[in-house]
Amino acid sequence: MKKCVAVIDTTFARVDMGDIAVKVLKRRLPGYSIRRITVPGIKDLPGAAKRMLDQGCEAAITLGWVGMREADKLSYIAMSVGLIMVEIFTGKLILDVTVHEDEAPGDPKKLKEIAVDRVEKHAENLALLLREGPEALVKYAGKGLRQGYEHAGELK
Amino acid sequence: MKKCVAVIDTTFARVDMGDIAVKVLKRRLPGYSIRRITVPGIKDLPGAAKRMLDQGCEAAITLGWVGMREADKLSYIAMSVGLIMVEIFTGKLILDVTVHEDEAPGDPKKLKEIAVDRVEKHAENLALLLREGPEALVKYAGKGLRQGYEHAGELK
Amino acid sequence: MKKCVAVIDTTFARVDMGDIAVKVLKRRLPGYSIRRITVPGIKDLPGAAKRMLDQGCEAAITLGWVGMREADKLSYIAMSVGLIMVEIFTGKLILDVTVHEDEAPGDPKKLKEIAVDRVEKHAENLALLLREGPEALVKYAGKGLRQGYEHAGELK
Amino acid sequence: MKKCVAVIDTTFARVDMGDIAVKVLKRRLPGYSIRRITVPGIKDLPGAAKRMLDQGCEAAITLGWVGMREADKLSYIAMSVGLIMVEIFTGKLILDVTVHEDEAPGDPKKLKEIAVDRVEKHAENLALLLREGPEALVKYAGKGLRQGYEHAGELK
Amino acid sequence: MKKCVAVIDTTFARVDMGDIAVKVLKRRLPGYSIRRITVPGIKDLPGAAKRMLDQGCEAAITLGWVGMREADKLSYIAMSVGLIMVEIFTGKLILDVTVHEDEAPGDPKKLKEIAVDRVEKHAENLALLLREGPEALVKYAGKGLRQGYEHAGELK
Repeated sequence: MKKCVAVIDTTFARVDMGDIAVKVLKRRLPGYSIRRITVPGIKDLPGAAKRMLDQGCEAAITLGWVGMREADKLSYIAMSVGLIMVEIFTGKLILDVTVHEDEAPGDPKKLKEIAVDRVEKHAENLALLLREGPEALVKYAGKGLRQGYEHAGELK
Repeated sequence: MKKCVAVIDTTFARVDMGDIAVKVLKRRLPGYSIRRITVPGIKDLPGAAKRMLDQGCEAAITLGWVGMREADKLSYIAMSVGLIMVEIFTGKLILDVTVHEDEAPGDPKKLKEIAVDRVEKHAENLALLLREGPEALVKYAGKGLRQGYEHAGELK
Repeated sequence: MKKCVAVIDTTFARVDMGDIAVKVLKRRLPGYSIRRITVPGIKDLPGAAKRMLDQGCEAAITLGWVGMREADKLSYIAMSVGLIMVEIFTGKLILDVTVHEDEAPGDPKKLKEIAVDRVEKHAENLALLLREGPEALVKYAGKGLRQGYEHAGELK
Repeated sequence: MKKCVAVIDTTFARVDMGDIAVKVLKRRLPGYSIRRITVPGIKDLPGAAKRMLDQGCEAAITLGWVGMREADKLSYIAMSVGLIMVEIFTGKLILDVTVHEDEAPGDPKKLKEIAVDRVEKHAENLALLLREGPEALVKYAGKGLRQGYEHAGELK
Repeated sequence: MKKCVAVIDTTFARVDMGDIAVKVLKRRLPGYSIRRITVPGIKDLPGAAKRMLDQGCEAAITLGWVGMREADKLSYIAMSVGLIMVEIFTGKLILDVTVHEDEAPGDPKKLKEIAVDRVEKHAENLALLLREGPEALVKYAGKGLRQGYEHAGELK
């Protein structure tokens, strides 16, 4: 049986983030089956990731969209703690990707660009880590890489 | 024995959220028994959910009402982390629904509408996920669905 | 041997909250022994609750007093997460009651009234839940019950 | 073999808090060996406490110094949650003592007094709880005890 | 087989923090193999640390770079809680080192100096603790040591 990677996004998001991730992962990880599911919002991501990993997926990428209200920020904390706990409990790799609605207030085009770029780059990261192992990113250490923005670069 | 879904709401809430959820779930999940309980406030929800799931329920929907004080916001963080931990520990599905008193300050009619709509839609989500499995919501991924408000829609 | 309920309060509190809870519980739960202990402050409550429940108590009520400093608010988050985790790990009921010093700044008489009322009502809640089971509060669901204040009531 | 209590402080602190605690504990707990270790900062305290308790200590007192930056406040949340989790997982008693640099801004003498008083009083608390058991502090319940400040007292 | 220490940094960082730590650790811990990996950002550190420790490393140093956005601060909380949980679950030592972009706004040279100094000093701390055991830092207790800044010193 093929090894499996889970892609989990939300109906709350305003960009089909899962679709973007699936495309990258299919291209970069031909040896894997990609299992995609969707949950309502960001607080549903950790439980869903846990279930997918328990069902045999080797890794997951979660794709969250964080609203502008204070409650959304607090939910972001809970989601982040939860996803980290799933990684700790399962010993498996999860890349936790989020777009925050206030990254480009009043500019939906820009916000979509951020989302697309961020998901693509982190899907590439996940594929690289699965293909080459945890040392794969050492060559980019400290390079100020950014997803959704231009790279910040290394301080001179 | 019928499979069971737990509905857990609070006496703190100002709308009978549990009743709304029960009605939807009975209609949409005729094959399930719906077990409803009520706790005082939002911080009591995770422990109650854990007990219901341990007693055999397959899934739960929790219905919280978050007050306007700073302490309520901090309690919201704890509740959210707790419910996520219950999902992680049990491997079972919990939909965590909350209404925040400050979503419609000074407008009780609007606040009630938000609560009713949000509970109904998330009860529908839960029924759909239980009937059709975790892929059921993929068709709505990235559609900017909202519960309690008009859908935000997909960014073009 | 009689079943046991733990009452845990603090030396930080400015009202003898434990005494109030013990009186209610003795009256309402004649079949239980009430075991009372006291810890220094709110961050000591979860560990103490865990030890009491491990030693055989069936449920606990914790009584915290939250100061006005920022550090107290942050401690409140930690305490709340901790008590929820104890409920999750033990599967037992804990009612987590707190009074916040800033609920009645400069009005000690009012603050004491809030504390007394809140502890009494939550001790009643605990007794009711233990006597009648988790469905006991369903009849008050969504009624906007408050402890320490007048009930907010149901939205029309 | 003698029973053991762990004293854990930091190199970040600006007062030798561990030394103060050791002196009190040696005087009050002659039957115990006092094991003292030091970690860099507050986020290192929970892991260190876990290791000391796993190595056989019966209880611990941790002595943290919280800086004035926002990052220090956020670290305080993490430390507090962590120490509570260690208590929950081990079932052992930890007294978590912290001094916050902003308790006496610009007044190092006052800040040192706060630190000394707080550590001494909590070391006394720990000794009392170990010698007499968890009921030892019931007589001070609700008395508004403070460590580092004058007692706030009971509300009339 | 040699004992192993893990060095984990990020591609988000703007200074090659891992390289700095590796150099110190190789010099100070000739008996250990140093295993270095890199993850995208700070929320990936706890899961990576858990995997390295599960694979046999005896200790880890994590090197995080915290951005200036509110989301970065919230991620910092989650990362900090996560790393503490890994220490608690594994019983192994992790030094959690972070540089915050807002420590020297608009002054990249200063920020780099902070990063270099902080990583070097904490790598020295880790080496010392591994070579000499948990009592090694007692002589610096309460000395107001700082990493990235001048030592604050002991209060008189």
